[in-house]
Amino acid sequence: MRDIIEWIKNANKVKLGTFPTPLHRLERMEKELDYEGIYIKRDDLTGLGAGGNKIRSLEFILGDAINKNCNLIIASGPPQSNLCSLTASACAKLGLKCVIVNNGEEPDKLQGNMLLNYILNAEIHSIGIATKEERDLYVKNLYIKYKDEGNRPYVIENGATTGMGALGYVSATIEMQKQCLEGKLPINTIFAPGGNGGVAAGLIYGNALLGLPFQINIISVEDHKACLTEHILKTIDELVEITQIPFNFKLEDVCNITDKYRGEGWGVNTEESTDAVFRFAQQEGIFIENIYNSKVLVGMEAAIKNAEVTGGVCYLHTGGFGSLFSQF
Amino acid sequence: MRDIIEWIKNANKVKLGTFPTPLHRLERMEKELDYEGIYIKRDDLTGLGAGGNKIRSLEFILGDAINKNCNLIIASGPPQSNLCSLTASACAKLGLKCVIVNNGEEPDKLQGNMLLNYILNAEIHSIGIATKEERDLYVKNLYIKYKDEGNRPYVIENGATTGMGALGYVSATIEMQKQCLEGKLPINTIFAPGGNGGVAAGLIYGNALLGLPFQINIISVEDHKACLTEHILKTIDELVEITQIPFNFKLEDVCNITDKYRGEGWGVNTEESTDAVFRFAQQEGIFIENIYNSKVLVGMEAAIKNAEVTGGVCYLHTGGFGSLFSQF
Repeated sequence: MRDIIEWIKNANKVKLGTFPTPLHRLERMEKELDYEGIYIKRDDLTGLGAGGNKIRSLEFILGDAINKNCNLIIASGPPQSNLCSLTASACAKLGLKCVIVNNGEEPDKLQGNMLLNYILNAEIHSIGIATKEERDLYVKNLYIKYKDEGNRPYVIENGATTGMGALGYVSATIEMQKQCLEGKLPINTIFAPGGNGGVAAGLIYGNALLGLPFQINIISVEDHKACLTEHILKTIDELVEITQIPFNFKLEDVCNITDKYRGEGWGVNTEESTDAVFRFAQQEGIFIENIYNSKVLVGMEAAIKNAEVTGGVCYLHTGGFGSLFSQF
Repeated sequence: MRDIIEWIKNANKVKLGTFPTPLHRLERMEKELDYEGIYIKRDDLTGLGAGGNKIRSLEFILGDAINKNCNLIIASGPPQSNLCSLTASACAKLGLKCVIVNNGEEPDKLQGNMLLNYILNAEIHSIGIATKEERDLYVKNLYIKYKDEGNRPYVIENGATTGMGALGYVSATIEMQKQCLEGKLPINTIFAPGGNGGVAAGLIYGNALLGLPFQINIISVEDHKACLTEHILKTIDELVEITQIPFNFKLEDVCNITDKYRGEGWGVNTEESTDAVFRFAQQEGIFIENIYNSKVLVGMEAAIKNAEVTGGVCYLHTGGFGSLFSQF
């Protein structure tokens, strides 16, 4: 248990966010569901750029980049990628040059994250309509070009869903355990989204190495359970390779993964998920978006109603406030 | 000094935000300006709705409303009013009905704060093009109507710039003094915006009653110094009436007010203020908007460059991230 806390403490990381993020009760929801002890972990309030969960990943990824003496970071994604924009914010804070590769056309008017990237003075490459493979090839060539020019570039792979990025949620698990101990918060279950599995892998691996203080419930928002499980296991393998601390558990013994609330998958709302955006705002005054957090909320509420949990539960808010405005 | 801390502790207030908000250093700016000890107070991260400074005001205003057994809150402003939207978030959290009166037409597509108001299920009255006086009259009639119907309505006056609202920044001053003492932060100067003077009045009054731990520098973003001073004095009078703790100071002895950076006033950017939005994002990865915070930053940087301050300074970030997207 000590091992992972020590390892994280000594890891190559940079300070980007305002941690610990708040962890507080949802009193109106408790009344509504007649259930005592519903908490929320406010990773929407990570305090850099537009906030959200990726700030935690970037602390380790850019720590690695700086440790490797890199001076230029290449991130890639669709035009409204949160990861790209947060990378640009993080690079600004660290004094690194940021290069963003977007597959998509440059619009006439910059909006949302593209406006933020412009304000941050990131170098933008809009490569038009392209597959992920074509975009990856473009990034590879860009990397070679910068290297040839005497720069020391670093590529953020797979939207930061890597072992290195997942360290952010290993660290978050330690932070939450500390908050629970210090604040005497009786939380024993965490509900978190499973997209391509980065947050989930970090939570599951961290929690297991801490001696299982929490039960981790992952709500798939994208793929079927088998596919998400595979993603998570792959990222846990990468974590083990980085930390050299083995993960001697069967996945099903240390977490619950469900795909019951994913509907038709990533970005496709269900009736219940849209309803959750409205209901949660009207209950607690806090906004969640309708790709990740809404489906997790539906899953958590169902678990509470069906008496599948006992004791304090915690809802992980991973951010994405900005994207809400394009969802309605 | 004890008096005001005790008074605030016992005041009728409700818990809305995630306090204390972070207070941290701006290391890249320190290097850039070759000045040690530049801090930022992150009141953009107040953690309810879209965040920002008004959450602090609403803790006291809605505390007063609940103490008076009111069950319906009426707020008014232009369609994109932050105050209206934050009131709707706060009412959601507290289980109060929220009624918003907007002078302006209802648009075909709900955007920004109007979308948030819809998600929050606030009752919206769009009264078309109207002066502030006409809007106030509408609010008055609405108040009477609700009262006649057996409701217990409460009106938020003047966009929450009242003595009751200013208590939020009396409380913030206490919070900052505590953070400085506990964290051994050598901050002795605070830079904050002066719009219609609510934040300023709270800071000045609170700081004076605490024995002047800070020097308060108010940068007008709207009116000439004489006019802003009048607004601040009026709100301090209201504070004294509420708390019954006198303010035995000449205003010029307990703060600096400057109108040097206001340009042509509220909402009219200066070349320097626009530049500040870009420069700050590129230095620290944090976004500020271009009505309030940008002009304060210009004023603070000038004060540092001109050696008008010594020791640790603190920049108060009052939020407004959402409005940035309509400014470029």
